[in-house]
Amino acid sequence: MKVAALAGGVGAARFLRGLVRAVDPADVTVVGNTGDDLRLHGLHVSPDLDTVMYTLGGGIHPTQGWGRADDTLTVAGELRDRYGAPDWFTLGDRDLATHLVRSERLAAGASLSQVTAELARAWGLGCGLLPMTDDPVTTTITTVDGRQLHFQEWWVGERAGPDVAAVTFAGAAAAQPAPGVLDAIADADVVVVCPSNPVVSIGTILSVPGIRAALRDAGPVVGVSPIVGGRVVRGMADRLLPAVGVAVDAAAVAKGYADFLDAWVLDTADAQRADEVAALGVRTGVTASVMDTVAVAESLARFTLDLAR
Amino acid sequence: MKVAALAGGVGAARFLRGLVRAVDPADVTVVGNTGDDLRLHGLHVSPDLDTVMYTLGGGIHPTQGWGRADDTLTVAGELRDRYGAPDWFTLGDRDLATHLVRSERLAAGASLSQVTAELARAWGLGCGLLPMTDDPVTTTITTVDGRQLHFQEWWVGERAGPDVAAVTFAGAAAAQPAPGVLDAIADADVVVVCPSNPVVSIGTILSVPGIRAALRDAGPVVGVSPIVGGRVVRGMADRLLPAVGVAVDAAAVAKGYADFLDAWVLDTADAQRADEVAALGVRTGVTASVMDTVAVAESLARFTLDLAR
Repeated sequence: MKVAALAGGVGAARFLRGLVRAVDPADVTVVGNTGDDLRLHGLHVSPDLDTVMYTLGGGIHPTQGWGRADDTLTVAGELRDRYGAPDWFTLGDRDLATHLVRSERLAAGASLSQVTAELARAWGLGCGLLPMTDDPVTTTITTVDGRQLHFQEWWVGERAGPDVAAVTFAGAAAAQPAPGVLDAIADADVVVVCPSNPVVSIGTILSVPGIRAALRDAGPVVGVSPIVGGRVVRGMADRLLPAVGVAVDAAAVAKGYADFLDAWVLDTADAQRADEVAALGVRTGVTASVMDTVAVAESLARFTLDLAR
Repeated sequence: MKVAALAGGVGAARFLRGLVRAVDPADVTVVGNTGDDLRLHGLHVSPDLDTVMYTLGGGIHPTQGWGRADDTLTVAGELRDRYGAPDWFTLGDRDLATHLVRSERLAAGASLSQVTAELARAWGLGCGLLPMTDDPVTTTITTVDGRQLHFQEWWVGERAGPDVAAVTFAGAAAAQPAPGVLDAIADADVVVVCPSNPVVSIGTILSVPGIRAALRDAGPVVGVSPIVGGRVVRGMADRLLPAVGVAVDAAAVAKGYADFLDAWVLDTADAQRADEVAALGVRTGVTASVMDTVAVAESLARFTLDLAR
């Protein structure tokens, strides 16, 4: 069974760790968000792709959910203390190696999808990992006081403090899906929308022209709600959903996907939202979705795939 | 007294550490070799400029004479073990911070001389530090079996193993001295040729059009022999001098500089070469020149400046 999965960062990575246990990893293609990508110290950093890669490759920091396990901050400390470089976004030493390789290959003319495949191979990933696009797309936060911030500046730099007036995806209108993305969606027996931020992870992927239409035309599309009991499991979707007019609610998120969504997995805490989702013409399933262990993630993945079929 | 100093790497840096104690550092301008510069992992590395900067800034590795003190190899290990990146030229973690800053600034359009000044300021250097040129010049080794190697590939990568047929400076003909270089030479009360490799450090600087002519027109030019007792103190000049038809001999090196050299400092081990140097019309002085301590370096610097005047 071929599976295509739309993925953000930490939540998606935890789900995917279960998915590649539930099906043959060789049949899984992950389409990752690159709207959070940024340049730091002259390097191209792809936070969400790396979170997925490190998680599936066994190198993720086990508690923070991003960055490398057993990492050190020697370079970052030197950049800050010696050269006064900005330190609002911390890159560990091991993590830096990834950004160095990626940046060198991009500078040599490789596409982001080529480099991502090379990096994933080095990590022994059994599944495919594609950026949503090879073109520059930048998730941009407009604050209520009129500032335009790179998503990471708002989220990491300002700890999601400023209230948000709008979320835009600079460059998206001119972007094309990366090679393989539309085929992966079209060829999939099931497309999974991972439990990721609906605005700045899945929403960003959907902003790339052609992807949303491909989902409408695809085989069954099943999503896993990132909202559990009216709260976000991780991240800052609760700060962003209101800015795009969507309630922090598992049913409201499903409604935003209704044009392509066939099935929606709700956490047991949200069982009472099932009727509302069903009214959208979307099949619902209710299960435990907080992935404290890989075993839960695997069960959730199996449940999700079963619901789709 | 204004001093301009032509400098390679380790030997020059040790001399300069004495020079900035012998005269006001604010009156010293160092012109550094950039022919050894290379790109590694996408970064611009300037080994000789950094050796001078780290030495004068107090951050040099105390025994190896290059790289940073108390450095670690986390990034290098990850690049090698995870990504299979070439590891023939090792960059420590602290050292990497310098290359990241330099590369980011160069990519943003800054010149090498601008970046070098910024880095030197971060290290609190009291003297000026200029690259010989802002243009790309690459010291290239042609081996007797016809291979063309970047100097660092030959020296570090192949440990100076292959016999050398020729040394060339790719790009030199089109290079211009960096801003400030010709003025520093013209304005100097004394120009010092540091005890550096005559072929791939001083020779490289002299390959930049205009610098040799400026030295001929300059005030007294005094050199310190890098050859002591018919041997190189550090490095591989003994492998390169024969390739350019020069004996590994303190007098023979002076002869190569005779068109601009006014005075030449010989080590006590080479006192018997003084007559030969004097026959070139070059004033000679004999002193202890092996800089085991900063105190010796300072004495040598004072002796050198006195000889010039």
